[in-house]
Amino acid sequence: MKVTAVIMAGGRGERFWPKSRNSLPKQFLCLTADGETMLQKTVKRLSPLVATEDIFIVTNAAYTGLVTEQLPDLPRENILAEPMARNTAPCIGLAAAVIRKKYDDAVMLVLPSDHLIQYEEMYTDTLTQAIAMAEAGDNLVTIGITPTYPETGYGYIRFMRDGDKKIPHGVYQVECFVEKPDLETAKDYLKSRKYLWNSGMFVWKLSTILKNFEALMPDIFNGLGAITDAFGTPQFDAVLQEKFASFPSESIDFGIMEKAENIYTLPASFGWDDVGSWLALERINPTNECGNVVSGDVITIGTEKSIICGGSRLIAAVGVSDLIVVDTDDAILLCAKDSTQDVKKVLENLRICNRRELI
Amino acid sequence: MKVTAVIMAGGRGERFWPKSRNSLPKQFLCLTADGETMLQKTVKRLSPLVATEDIFIVTNAAYTGLVTEQLPDLPRENILAEPMARNTAPCIGLAAAVIRKKYDDAVMLVLPSDHLIQYEEMYTDTLTQAIAMAEAGDNLVTIGITPTYPETGYGYIRFMRDGDKKIPHGVYQVECFVEKPDLETAKDYLKSRKYLWNSGMFVWKLSTILKNFEALMPDIFNGLGAITDAFGTPQFDAVLQEKFASFPSESIDFGIMEKAENIYTLPASFGWDDVGSWLALERINPTNECGNVVSGDVITIGTEKSIICGGSRLIAAVGVSDLIVVDTDDAILLCAKDSTQDVKKVLENLRICNRRELI
Repeated sequence: MKVTAVIMAGGRGERFWPKSRNSLPKQFLCLTADGETMLQKTVKRLSPLVATEDIFIVTNAAYTGLVTEQLPDLPRENILAEPMARNTAPCIGLAAAVIRKKYDDAVMLVLPSDHLIQYEEMYTDTLTQAIAMAEAGDNLVTIGITPTYPETGYGYIRFMRDGDKKIPHGVYQVECFVEKPDLETAKDYLKSRKYLWNSGMFVWKLSTILKNFEALMPDIFNGLGAITDAFGTPQFDAVLQEKFASFPSESIDFGIMEKAENIYTLPASFGWDDVGSWLALERINPTNECGNVVSGDVITIGTEKSIICGGSRLIAAVGVSDLIVVDTDDAILLCAKDSTQDVKKVLENLRICNRRELI
Repeated sequence: MKVTAVIMAGGRGERFWPKSRNSLPKQFLCLTADGETMLQKTVKRLSPLVATEDIFIVTNAAYTGLVTEQLPDLPRENILAEPMARNTAPCIGLAAAVIRKKYDDAVMLVLPSDHLIQYEEMYTDTLTQAIAMAEAGDNLVTIGITPTYPETGYGYIRFMRDGDKKIPHGVYQVECFVEKPDLETAKDYLKSRKYLWNSGMFVWKLSTILKNFEALMPDIFNGLGAITDAFGTPQFDAVLQEKFASFPSESIDFGIMEKAENIYTLPASFGWDDVGSWLALERINPTNECGNVVSGDVITIGTEKSIICGGSRLIAAVGVSDLIVVDTDDAILLCAKDSTQDVKKVLENLRICNRRELI
């Protein structure tokens, strides 16, 4: 069966300020030494599995220009612009409505645009197995990540292995999805060995997800029909605008995954990283002999365990440690490694002072 | 007797990089909130004692433009350009040679251009007393600073109080000058209560210093005659070039003060600060409630005891402490407070890489 991919690229992360701005969110940034943006890497990593013309990017209308710029080989009609942010369920619904116009049925890989994968061959193998599982029936397959520490910032998947021999090796039934836990609960999850991180990667057939929309989110399902009919016609923008505005703002996890049947998970071991803050640069980039991750025009003297992203001018760091430095033309961030969660306070401050040009 | 002032402004400090450059040394920088440069403050502070037309600036030929710019009211002929750096003895000799053309005799205040004084009235009182002591005879008067800690970066003056009733109250005889001590010696000096810091401020009569040049540095003395004769004539530059090149590169301390008779010191308590590194900004500027000294467009979140000099862009500091940040258009310095002495290593690195535009 035809395999398509839906990459969700509408997010507006603030944790990579000052490089990320409202006009340039994380998925459009290059955070690795290879010069590729997160979105470009996400698309490139799909090449063994999906043909370029079957990759669809769902993004905010404001970002279609960036997507076109960063993915010149992608057919323009594969860039789907959400008229407004409505969380993941309407986003995935829109993609399903458009793919339905192209194929009677197909496998849909639903993927975030701003995560990193360290072992791409394993990623291909895992998705291949997920695709098989999705094709085998009306299954909703999610990629689970084996937890390595009690993270409180992710949702978790509770999985189970029942005696059902029909389930292939390496695939587990999902008992339930749970929201972001507090630290104690997260520690219990880790100890229990019964939970995986919810990576937000999903695999299913077009027909399967549409059935689930029909059964669990009928308001959206009904709107999708009109969107499919209008796709490729002059009325498309107006119809999309009207229907999308009427959709509830809901996540696919809450709207469908937590209520549906036949939910399966594949525990992945392909070196997943959600690149959640500047600290991730240490995990995804090589560090030098002083434990520094350095890019740009930088001189370090007695400086260690620091992350320094140079801009257009020289950065000289003398005797500092555990510091994050990010330089841009109009703003520079200096942040202690243990304070990355407070970067958002800088943005709050900028909002209060109405300094939009810096946000 | 006429009182003149000679301000030595030829230095090329590197400790205020990146704000200070070869083309803009410390004395031409504004390091306080009042918007005045070190040189401008030095001149302003003299107004109760010396008429503007009697203030002479000796500087490097490369800096005469900066001096003219920063001191528009100063007569152009009072800016004396050293053809090359030759330490303080030739510098003071040049000033004496020029002043001699103007006055048969006069009191000379010899002052650095890059120190700060906190209590300017006391400064005026102390210099007034020093002027009286200089006028009273062929005395060489130096301003000593009562040490507050065992500084190893300054020269010291060993003073004594003998029974000689002719010495006015508050004036002490100098037993000897000593070079920069090691820490242990500095601690002993501090404990002994017999030493003062050598501030590099001197007061004497023109006739007195010329007698001393004649007796102790005859090579320089002989050259000065030709310089005096040439001053104001078309031959001046050529004569100065030739004579100055022939002068030994020697400090006034070593060349005259350590060998002369009738050396006196006035211990000053006027809040002297040599502004030796970025750390001085904490002493000479008000700190906010978090103990930060901040200038420019700066947002601090959970940041304390830091010195942040903003430039043309926003600086956001999150969770940092004891950090020095200095932003300029082409370079930004991040330096731990306990590593200011290593800033020069950045300049060494720039020299090795032949990046003159940044030095």
